[in-house]
Amino acid sequence: MKIKQILLASRPKGLPTLDNFKTTTATLPALNTGEVLVKPIYLSVDPYMRGRMNDAKSYIPPFQVNEPIESGGVGEVVESKADQFKPGDLVMSTNTRPFLPWATASIFPAGSLRKVDSSVPPSYYLGILGMPGLTAYFGLMDIGKPKPGETVVISGAAGAVGIVVGQLAKIAGCRVVGIAGGAEKVKLLTDIFDFDAAVDYKGNRNMSGAIAAACPNGVDIYFDNVGGEISDAVIQQMNFFGRVPLCGQISLYNSTEVPIGPRVQPKMVTYSLLMQGFIVGNYASRFPEGIKYLVELVKSGKLKYNETIEEGFDQLPDALLGLFSGRNSGKMIVKV
Amino acid sequence: MKIKQILLASRPKGLPTLDNFKTTTATLPALNTGEVLVKPIYLSVDPYMRGRMNDAKSYIPPFQVNEPIESGGVGEVVESKADQFKPGDLVMSTNTRPFLPWATASIFPAGSLRKVDSSVPPSYYLGILGMPGLTAYFGLMDIGKPKPGETVVISGAAGAVGIVVGQLAKIAGCRVVGIAGGAEKVKLLTDIFDFDAAVDYKGNRNMSGAIAAACPNGVDIYFDNVGGEISDAVIQQMNFFGRVPLCGQISLYNSTEVPIGPRVQPKMVTYSLLMQGFIVGNYASRFPEGIKYLVELVKSGKLKYNETIEEGFDQLPDALLGLFSGRNSGKMIVKV
Repeated sequence: MKIKQILLASRPKGLPTLDNFKTTTATLPALNTGEVLVKPIYLSVDPYMRGRMNDAKSYIPPFQVNEPIESGGVGEVVESKADQFKPGDLVMSTNTRPFLPWATASIFPAGSLRKVDSSVPPSYYLGILGMPGLTAYFGLMDIGKPKPGETVVISGAAGAVGIVVGQLAKIAGCRVVGIAGGAEKVKLLTDIFDFDAAVDYKGNRNMSGAIAAACPNGVDIYFDNVGGEISDAVIQQMNFFGRVPLCGQISLYNSTEVPIGPRVQPKMVTYSLLMQGFIVGNYASRFPEGIKYLVELVKSGKLKYNETIEEGFDQLPDALLGLFSGRNSGKMIVKV
Repeated sequence: MKIKQILLASRPKGLPTLDNFKTTTATLPALNTGEVLVKPIYLSVDPYMRGRMNDAKSYIPPFQVNEPIESGGVGEVVESKADQFKPGDLVMSTNTRPFLPWATASIFPAGSLRKVDSSVPPSYYLGILGMPGLTAYFGLMDIGKPKPGETVVISGAAGAVGIVVGQLAKIAGCRVVGIAGGAEKVKLLTDIFDFDAAVDYKGNRNMSGAIAAACPNGVDIYFDNVGGEISDAVIQQMNFFGRVPLCGQISLYNSTEVPIGPRVQPKMVTYSLLMQGFIVGNYASRFPEGIKYLVELVKSGKLKYNETIEEGFDQLPDALLGLFSGRNSGKMIVKV
């Protein structure tokens, strides 16, 4: 069977471009016993993937040049030589390596797949019920530890993680302030997702002043997805015993030099602040707890969700690049 | 009774000088019932006091211009009109305001004093059994959470806090590396205090290389007393899930502009690092636990201690300034 696949053509310096990717064709062999042929339906693009394009030590190995990119995905079984799966089943790959290659079809050993419940839209498993939703849940609950009446500020608030953090913080009884880029996203946060206030970082020259105005009682939790100057402005406003779950630093991922900024440590000592970097995989043993919590909120309508879905396998590289200009609102997904 | 006292004459810009202090005389009234006259025997000088010389919001109020400086101290009762105290008793002020004014004698209500056990040298209550010892204990144990076999790096390692952190980390089964200024302090750490290695920041142009060489398995805990470029070098070498108790930033206390440096957040996300600022007062409810732990180690000889004692009430300002050039080895104290 002939397939198309998208490879890493070269490692980017700074902001990636379409030239860092290339599309090739390949031929899959016939299935062996115990194997399953899977066609992806939805493939995910996520900010952390920028790190895998570098040849650098991190919590997951880098992509290899001339090998397919891989990302989170939900697929459909097309052909099966394993008893556990039949054509039409919706599947994801298992947690130990939860990725599908960027190929129009792939062969998997049956043991590396799991079926997903089709009572919710399958794309949700890449977002609110997948890595972004779990990232929001564990980062906010385990590191942020929200208490009723506290003020929570979220950067990248209209992104896949931020939108969930904001709603979970509201449910926890907090005042919630989102930071996002552009009037449309800011309106989305306050009008659709019930944030108490939202700050447009593209429309504000004086971020410190804007944050201070939106947070009259200071900031107790800063859930940080973006880093850089936005974070500098928020950290200035933090209260004694504030917590900073560090989820991502998308504003810095394409830096070609070591990013420089005001040192955070003096404020952290004076105000007894906690800052903790994390990835969702740190909480793998607690995923069932997180999924249970999120599924109940989704089914009861208490947790709203939005997605930006781009269409077509060939659009994958462009969708990934779109994350760095903030083209997405909510989770960015490609329908293959 | 005539006394001498040392006041804050003006707020320093940058490094304080002797001109920021002035000595005056005053007259104390006769004692009322319930009052006690106390002469300080030892007064403490500590890095955090630099912050109190600024007019800035912090965890303790600033010193006031033309009012006496105050600091930790052990005094002797000279005269008492309270049943609980008699001349010759050794006393400290109570935990809620644990300071003595910089005066040759002061009057206290009896309720604001407590007697100290004279079975250990009284100066120890300003160091290993006082704020510095408790700071070391809670910062290392509660934030650092040392595990046997881990590598602990301490900046300001020959200071009052650092010297205790290093020994407690050794007792916890860790490899302990100290950073200090000058060949003499480095030798003290390895020869007297049994540190596994020590790095002289004054003698090393390539701090990153020196830290890497001293920590072949990377750094799991970085107990930070100094901040700045020394911290930049250590944080580069940190392992996944490393912890950074932020105790002080003495290298930055005299900055007149916002200190700038490499942003720590990208490394913290990638390596799931935790950084937490704290002051010992956060643990006030657990002081008895800490003192019990430390007293037993001191009495059994497992915890060694050193002090730099300067002589004379008039030397107080100069001793405080000496902290910023690293003149002390271990706890800096003035014998009045």
